[in-house]
Amino acid sequence: MTQIERARKGEVTPEMEFVAARELLAPELIRDEVAAGRMVIPANKVHLAKNLEPMGIGIAAKCKINANIGNSAVTSDAGEELDKLHAAVHYGADTVMDLSTGAGIDEIRQTLVDASPVPIGTVPIYQVVQNLNEFLDMKPQDMLDMVEHQAKQGVDYMTLHAGVLIEHLSLTMNRITGIVSRGGSLLAQWMMHHRQQNPLYTHFEDLCDIMYQYDVTWSIGDGLRPGCLADASDKAQFAELDTLGELTKRAWAKNNQVMIEGPGHVPMDQIPMNMERQIEVCHGAPFYVLGPLVIDISPGYDHISSAIGAAIAGQHGASMLCYVTPKEHLGLPDAKDVREGVIAYKIAAHAADVARHRPGARDRDDELSKARYEFDWNRQFELSLDPERAREMHDETLPQETFKSAKFCSMCGPKFCSMRINEDMRKMAPEELTELASSVAEAAK
Amino acid sequence: MTQIERARKGEVTPEMEFVAARELLAPELIRDEVAAGRMVIPANKVHLAKNLEPMGIGIAAKCKINANIGNSAVTSDAGEELDKLHAAVHYGADTVMDLSTGAGIDEIRQTLVDASPVPIGTVPIYQVVQNLNEFLDMKPQDMLDMVEHQAKQGVDYMTLHAGVLIEHLSLTMNRITGIVSRGGSLLAQWMMHHRQQNPLYTHFEDLCDIMYQYDVTWSIGDGLRPGCLADASDKAQFAELDTLGELTKRAWAKNNQVMIEGPGHVPMDQIPMNMERQIEVCHGAPFYVLGPLVIDISPGYDHISSAIGAAIAGQHGASMLCYVTPKEHLGLPDAKDVREGVIAYKIAAHAADVARHRPGARDRDDELSKARYEFDWNRQFELSLDPERAREMHDETLPQETFKSAKFCSMCGPKFCSMRINEDMRKMAPEELTELASSVAEAAK
Repeated sequence: MTQIERARKGEVTPEMEFVAARELLAPELIRDEVAAGRMVIPANKVHLAKNLEPMGIGIAAKCKINANIGNSAVTSDAGEELDKLHAAVHYGADTVMDLSTGAGIDEIRQTLVDASPVPIGTVPIYQVVQNLNEFLDMKPQDMLDMVEHQAKQGVDYMTLHAGVLIEHLSLTMNRITGIVSRGGSLLAQWMMHHRQQNPLYTHFEDLCDIMYQYDVTWSIGDGLRPGCLADASDKAQFAELDTLGELTKRAWAKNNQVMIEGPGHVPMDQIPMNMERQIEVCHGAPFYVLGPLVIDISPGYDHISSAIGAAIAGQHGASMLCYVTPKEHLGLPDAKDVREGVIAYKIAAHAADVARHRPGARDRDDELSKARYEFDWNRQFELSLDPERAREMHDETLPQETFKSAKFCSMCGPKFCSMRINEDMRKMAPEELTELASSVAEAAK
Repeated sequence: MTQIERARKGEVTPEMEFVAARELLAPELIRDEVAAGRMVIPANKVHLAKNLEPMGIGIAAKCKINANIGNSAVTSDAGEELDKLHAAVHYGADTVMDLSTGAGIDEIRQTLVDASPVPIGTVPIYQVVQNLNEFLDMKPQDMLDMVEHQAKQGVDYMTLHAGVLIEHLSLTMNRITGIVSRGGSLLAQWMMHHRQQNPLYTHFEDLCDIMYQYDVTWSIGDGLRPGCLADASDKAQFAELDTLGELTKRAWAKNNQVMIEGPGHVPMDQIPMNMERQIEVCHGAPFYVLGPLVIDISPGYDHISSAIGAAIAGQHGASMLCYVTPKEHLGLPDAKDVREGVIAYKIAAHAADVARHRPGARDRDDELSKARYEFDWNRQFELSLDPERAREMHDETLPQETFKSAKFCSMCGPKFCSMRINEDMRKMAPEELTELASSVAEAAK
């Protein structure tokens, strides 16, 4: 039985208990959210038997972030990918996707599943492509077999672009960047060549049966997501979204857990509408968005332009934010890029939690601000999202341990530190200050 | 005569012409905006006689960004500050503030004004403090003299915390971080010690007379801006804002140009309200905000958490965004930090321009996206906000010149490049594709 099936029967599973404790929410609330399909707990039974710590993804829970890792044909191997997994989990990724498309795919995936305490996601079509000399030779059964193969390895959720239909393709022809999803474009090519419907759509229930067996969660891909601002919120995107809504219900009917993937590249003013529309069309299934980038001219800094979009998306209801690293559009990220991407997205997700007033969301901010006011530098570093980086930057100018309790830093120096001045000011009693203000006002009349 | 005075008389000055050309707006519109106080052109006559290129700051114009540079008692000198100015202008800062508080203040300021094509701002109280052994010995005349001294040097706009009143101070006593503005906290201390009202408030019209002579633009400081999420949008902040609204009218009555400074640290969900309230209370005077940071736990990455807030602020009407560097709260930024801060804020300002549909705002994005689709790597780099960084990242894995027209990058490798696949797909005529889709749909029935 899957988490959703057990939730629907009224059961609170150990995984739901774990998630509840983590989220500071009642176990029954978690159960009800899972039953309603508004929350998923991607936990493949195989991975659960190893060292997976269940993660709840849904609007009632804290906003989550995913880090994509994986090699490409051009660069990286299992050792490097394990380094990236460590970096991702260390800095706070809530799930990790292995998007390997190069050599040693099986070995990399097994290494990651075995090592990872967070859910692992994949895009099975990548390995199907890798296995074939010519992708167009793919048979629908190849996809089913691959999903089963990866499910057996313990993959917790899978991106499958089942909603890209042949009738949507002509809607992308006038786009600036066409179809930018790798899975989406491969399937489009296959459909046109074979003059057939998307095999993931026609074999959807068969796929559900495999997913059910292992409780693999669907992450239904948005193969037609916009790849630039100009293509955002167009007919192609929303035609596919309608199909994703249909597939959500079909997966739920099979007691499968479902997330829906979203864009991509979207101007800021269109993001709230995009979130609301997905929630409505997909019946509240958790929305898992890639950024979105809010401008297209920031290569080298796309983690920042997309963190802006991600924060707004999270504020308006997205449940998980797929990170973007500084290398996006330029090359394969290394462990250093993973760190930058994860922290940018921890910021976005946390900003969304604060804005949505999720339970306890602001506690750590308040603690850090108190430490700041009290000149407790070590405590400030500890409470930071990246303590090593904070300490390193502080120590560039004032490395000596004695400055860790100094009443200033190199930004303003001792004479100009407003925090120090406040401390002096607060020596006056509040009543005395109020009286003083009245007498000054009186004198001014 | 000042720009606002001439605009009110119906004159289109050469500076307004220059701004109009830059903004793709009509000169008469610029004049009307300046006359109404909704736009400022900070252009000290002394700096204008050198090599200032006039900059329009206001809601009708593109969103601007400011870079703070300047030394502190702990570190930096004139040479280093000139490097920072170069970095700031090179990467696209629209104005630069010299916040020096250490040695050689006059020399640094003159060097920067002489070298800078963008408006230079200062916070005159810093030098007053620097000149005195004990700040509490300051006389109101010291402030007037300093403003005149810096105006003579050619400073284009000045931050003066004239709106922090003695009756506001008790409102900050229960804050977590009290008063975080350096100028604000110094003035608070002075008022309490001397049992007198803020001298910048009591001598406001005298200051206006000096500003008028050189056409120095007011940047009325928000001395009581919140220094953490918990203190945001509180009574102290809004009490001061009301005074800023009063001072705006008093400055306009003296034919002075005025901007209003804003927070600071604000949760995302409170930012639109903050922007709308300032516009209303300050009668449409341009709002110049510092970030705001949307979380407090990102030391080392505050350029990112504040760029999120800045983008939203810009979308909702802020006219200029004061950058924050990765060193914020930790130490004095160097030229490397200036680059990171400026680019993060170019992203925020551009995202706001796109979201507000400002004329031509998305053109460069569309150009870059076309270059991306066409695998024109060099053109992509050229159109990027930081071409050097984009090229450098791409070249980490594929440095050879031949890859500058390659139909893939190291992120996906050749087999998985969606852009390449689209190119293949588009060989089918659109009508043929539509027919194909119909026949597949027909067969499915």
